[in-house]
Amino acid sequence: MKTDIANLSAAFEQQLLADIPLTRTMQLRVASWDGATLRLGAPLAPNINDKGCAFGGSLASLMTLAGWGVIVLKLRALDRECDIYVQDSKVRYLAPVWTDIVAEARIAEGEDWEGFVAGLATRGRARLHVHCRVPLADGADAATLEARFVAIAQKPDALA
Amino acid sequence: MKTDIANLSAAFEQQLLADIPLTRTMQLRVASWDGATLRLGAPLAPNINDKGCAFGGSLASLMTLAGWGVIVLKLRALDRECDIYVQDSKVRYLAPVWTDIVAEARIAEGEDWEGFVAGLATRGRARLHVHCRVPLADGADAATLEARFVAIAQKPDALA
Repeated sequence: MKTDIANLSAAFEQQLLADIPLTRTMQLRVASWDGATLRLGAPLAPNINDKGCAFGGSLASLMTLAGWGVIVLKLRALDRECDIYVQDSKVRYLAPVWTDIVAEARIAEGEDWEGFVAGLATRGRARLHVHCRVPLADGADAATLEARFVAIAQKPDALA
Repeated sequence: MKTDIANLSAAFEQQLLADIPLTRTMQLRVASWDGATLRLGAPLAPNINDKGCAFGGSLASLMTLAGWGVIVLKLRALDRECDIYVQDSKVRYLAPVWTDIVAEARIAEGEDWEGFVAGLATRGRARLHVHCRVPLADGADAATLEARFVAIAQKPDALA
């Protein structure tokens, strides 16, 4: 199980870097994935803004990718093939980030995987809210992102 | 006046590309600036996602920069030196973008420059809502962003 999780997150990192050019500039990497929380990291230098701290676009991109990745990895672990799209998001920029960046994501409070997977099985699509944050060194939020994603089964069970 | 506007937007493009590494990967350019609406462009190729259409992080970054740029350029035209930060934003992803990207921004309905500049003069800081969008070829929205920015005067009149 641990090996599966490590293999999935290594493959996910390679896929992101291969498919999305911006992630190569950002020097994105998977910092950790425990089956519930995904943490993506990126060094500060390639992600600075005009003030020398982290660019808001990098923070938003990293959080969005972390939220997307939580769903991608969870569904891969369940061996379900889906296309996953972000539908909308709300970002708050609370404090500047002067260090390397970590973005962590997990499903939002009140959401559950069982309902999501059941929706996919019966309707071929399901929505999920994800909570993402960039913590500061002291644990406070530097930025948060609440996002809604939709997953669409490539071979919906209901239509199979 | 036209020359001023052209000079300001050319300098703005050069500053973005010099200061924010991600904008170089995105191949960002100023498409147009008429004193009210700023349009930023970027080719699709460096901004694709795993599906081959525009990466949500690129769309959000380009719209955020367009919104930020509207305020930067307007205050420069008024010869006011401010630091401008994005505070929060709401993004909607409505349709995939399969072409080169344009993000356009202007101040939100109900906002006015006079009140914003007066706030800066009296309090040394002021907030402004900006509306941004990525139009499709047919004019419909592919993505929208509503963002709130704060400008902080480097030499507030009230404190001078």
